[in-house]
Amino acid sequence: MKSAIYPGSFDPCTYGHLNIIQRAAQLTDKLVVAVMRNSDKAPLFSVEERVELLQHAIDDMNLSENIEVVSGDGLLAEFARGLDICVIIKGIRDAGDLQYEQQMALVNQAINPELTTVLLPADIKWVHFSSRLFKEVAHYGGNVAHFAPNYVVQAVEHKMK
Amino acid sequence: MKSAIYPGSFDPCTYGHLNIIQRAAQLTDKLVVAVMRNSDKAPLFSVEERVELLQHAIDDMNLSENIEVVSGDGLLAEFARGLDICVIIKGIRDAGDLQYEQQMALVNQAINPELTTVLLPADIKWVHFSSRLFKEVAHYGGNVAHFAPNYVVQAVEHKMK
Amino acid sequence: MKSAIYPGSFDPCTYGHLNIIQRAAQLTDKLVVAVMRNSDKAPLFSVEERVELLQHAIDDMNLSENIEVVSGDGLLAEFARGLDICVIIKGIRDAGDLQYEQQMALVNQAINPELTTVLLPADIKWVHFSSRLFKEVAHYGGNVAHFAPNYVVQAVEHKMK
Amino acid sequence: MKSAIYPGSFDPCTYGHLNIIQRAAQLTDKLVVAVMRNSDKAPLFSVEERVELLQHAIDDMNLSENIEVVSGDGLLAEFARGLDICVIIKGIRDAGDLQYEQQMALVNQAINPELTTVLLPADIKWVHFSSRLFKEVAHYGGNVAHFAPNYVVQAVEHKMK
Amino acid sequence: MKSAIYPGSFDPCTYGHLNIIQRAAQLTDKLVVAVMRNSDKAPLFSVEERVELLQHAIDDMNLSENIEVVSGDGLLAEFARGLDICVIIKGIRDAGDLQYEQQMALVNQAINPELTTVLLPADIKWVHFSSRLFKEVAHYGGNVAHFAPNYVVQAVEHKMK
Amino acid sequence: MKSAIYPGSFDPCTYGHLNIIQRAAQLTDKLVVAVMRNSDKAPLFSVEERVELLQHAIDDMNLSENIEVVSGDGLLAEFARGLDICVIIKGIRDAGDLQYEQQMALVNQAINPELTTVLLPADIKWVHFSSRLFKEVAHYGGNVAHFAPNYVVQAVEHKMK
Repeated sequence: MKSAIYPGSFDPCTYGHLNIIQRAAQLTDKLVVAVMRNSDKAPLFSVEERVELLQHAIDDMNLSENIEVVSGDGLLAEFARGLDICVIIKGIRDAGDLQYEQQMALVNQAINPELTTVLLPADIKWVHFSSRLFKEVAHYGGNVAHFAPNYVVQAVEHKMK
Repeated sequence: MKSAIYPGSFDPCTYGHLNIIQRAAQLTDKLVVAVMRNSDKAPLFSVEERVELLQHAIDDMNLSENIEVVSGDGLLAEFARGLDICVIIKGIRDAGDLQYEQQMALVNQAINPELTTVLLPADIKWVHFSSRLFKEVAHYGGNVAHFAPNYVVQAVEHKMK
Repeated sequence: MKSAIYPGSFDPCTYGHLNIIQRAAQLTDKLVVAVMRNSDKAPLFSVEERVELLQHAIDDMNLSENIEVVSGDGLLAEFARGLDICVIIKGIRDAGDLQYEQQMALVNQAINPELTTVLLPADIKWVHFSSRLFKEVAHYGGNVAHFAPNYVVQAVEHKMK
Repeated sequence: MKSAIYPGSFDPCTYGHLNIIQRAAQLTDKLVVAVMRNSDKAPLFSVEERVELLQHAIDDMNLSENIEVVSGDGLLAEFARGLDICVIIKGIRDAGDLQYEQQMALVNQAINPELTTVLLPADIKWVHFSSRLFKEVAHYGGNVAHFAPNYVVQAVEHKMK
Repeated sequence: MKSAIYPGSFDPCTYGHLNIIQRAAQLTDKLVVAVMRNSDKAPLFSVEERVELLQHAIDDMNLSENIEVVSGDGLLAEFARGLDICVIIKGIRDAGDLQYEQQMALVNQAINPELTTVLLPADIKWVHFSSRLFKEVAHYGGNVAHFAPNYVVQAVEHKMK
Repeated sequence: MKSAIYPGSFDPCTYGHLNIIQRAAQLTDKLVVAVMRNSDKAPLFSVEERVELLQHAIDDMNLSENIEVVSGDGLLAEFARGLDICVIIKGIRDAGDLQYEQQMALVNQAINPELTTVLLPADIKWVHFSSRLFKEVAHYGGNVAHFAPNYVVQAVEHKMK
């Protein structure tokens, strides 16, 4: 794979995301991690903060050589075309994720037929996990130390105050 | 992706398989399509016949440049290691396929931890299709012309007599 | 609906089947209940016995006016064509049943494109029930009185001795 | 089947809906297609516009002989009783649709016990499709020509401006 | 089991809940039924009313000896710790309920690792039922007499006016 | 809970089983772990060997005080009645396990209506794991050290030779 895009909200990034990024980086010459602005949700972190936390994590994993973190908005199929990328990488956790991707395949085909989606099965540890759960546990003062790198955890706890 | 393996029974290959092969070939420098001998099932075609039908189809799609068709047996994780390949490509149709891959990920990690699995969502036309259905319809004399290339259809009909 | 066919193994018929038959009979001018010979399974009752038990139950429900019980074999799509019927009625209990029907739709389309399948959602009482469970409980001497009409229960208990 | 009702939002109608209507019309003496006002959603088209688009499509398919398009509101079980219809026809795409129908069966039984629901499995081409996806693709300027008849597509594109 | 907590919204309690309570009471020395305040939803009944209806139902079933009804808020894992209870009892109806519990297990482990969740499979009669459906049917004037005890039904009908 | 039974094939026991046993032992005054003879499957270990491996594991976890390991056959509902136990404990991994338990609830109710089933959600690490996968990996010489205690692993490797 020459180039691929790994899109998401990353609000904030978790070890679940970083596990996918690590595996995706080995599959591609260049991986663009795209923090998508999603007008539907009220995010905890701004897009800029999310990019910064991701960049920090990727630097720590020594993966920065072939990974670029960017922000984007609009429809993914169009955003990818703008970057001249035709491979999307997504993590897949369960039957709900699969159904969503099958619906998006119809959308993508109508917008940008050259786009291909590649699914990486989530590591079993993260099969029931999400950024939403991360924030929910942090909100109630639970122990989130093993959900994300130290500086992400601190940023979440700081926001929650 | 440098090299990847797309394993299966291919008894016989169908347009569902060929659709995955076409997309997989665009993602990799070299794609090995591996016809796996599966002692559990009584196949319709011998491994050699299945390799030949696949090779014919791949030649017809002008994909032979970066695709090699081989036969294999034993556990996939070991067979891939023997070929020095660490990316498996699989098509995924439904929740049952996903669960199977999640179980195999446990097996593969125990046998060959370097192995990564990449899932390509089946084209919607083939989401409920399989070689088993192909053979069942042919067995009852149904019209199978749109399930596979002409020579595959003829080979199936010849076997069924 | 002019005519429709409700196929099954009916080994033996249960209140789950009879509930579907009752509703199906109200939807059609003529309903053919077809006891299909299935070479894969070792049945408890012969096809003739299954037809007889069904006929008894249908007489008891005063439904015999527009219902005919027949036996059949081969592929359903061809059997229906032979009877000049193009509507199949099936009960549907869960996601597994739905997936099976979606696969059969591909088969039927290849054999007999005029065939339409109509699904009747199982009554909630029978959503987890089957003839197989009926026989399993009877085999172990459990109370099966509420699974089927009296003479069916007696026939099962007689076979189990 | 004497009469049946096929309810929906039809905002707007798609080839997925029209495929169900065509099959339903063959099963019934009279089919009422009911555009239901749904207070929960902010529709793209008014009920009147949706009725008009549906009527146009049904005329084009030469199905108008035994199909009537109406608008309705309130609970379906009561609306059907008002029309003296006791068969509901629904398309079913996946396990989520099935679960919804099983819940509605409980509601219908409490409101109007004479009501029967008949499910038609969605054609495989439309298994992951919906009016919502149609509008989403159109919103982003994607190609929606193969989702619905020409005048529906134009109406959507006109609204999106 | 010494003590256990059965949490819920109970807005209002139904025979589905009471079936779980009855079975749970037989498994534990003491069962705390906790009406949780849920800020996300606009309830039909106040927490106080829900407690009263539940207490009434439990008295009627002669279960009051080892059952206590309380109200609570905040995160369940913390609320249970405050009561010195480490077993949660939940009813489970379908795959969606199971997935929710698997996600909550991650949350609970981060908040209160001593907590164990025990799932009781819903009685088949209540597998597709919920308080939401109860209220929906009552809203449209349907017959809800068999969904809950008499005084609960009356309270719902009174609220609906 | 006074007494409960945790049945299974345990061919052989894994950390997945031992995790359930540990949690179940905390919920009950007495836990009977029952190695059920299952005539359908050709087991790797004899019932006696399976009991011995389980007993060894339970002794190692210092859980032997309130746990008894027994062997049994026939239908679980009857076996439990013979032991005067009316609570079954099962681990639940996925929607397939849930459906199986819902079917068994029908069987149990017909055989022994006093029986209650309690489901413990599998620890996430074991959600896709089974004894069958354990044996499959061992058969191919994979690393199974983290699937079960040392002496179980050795017993499996010894059998595989």
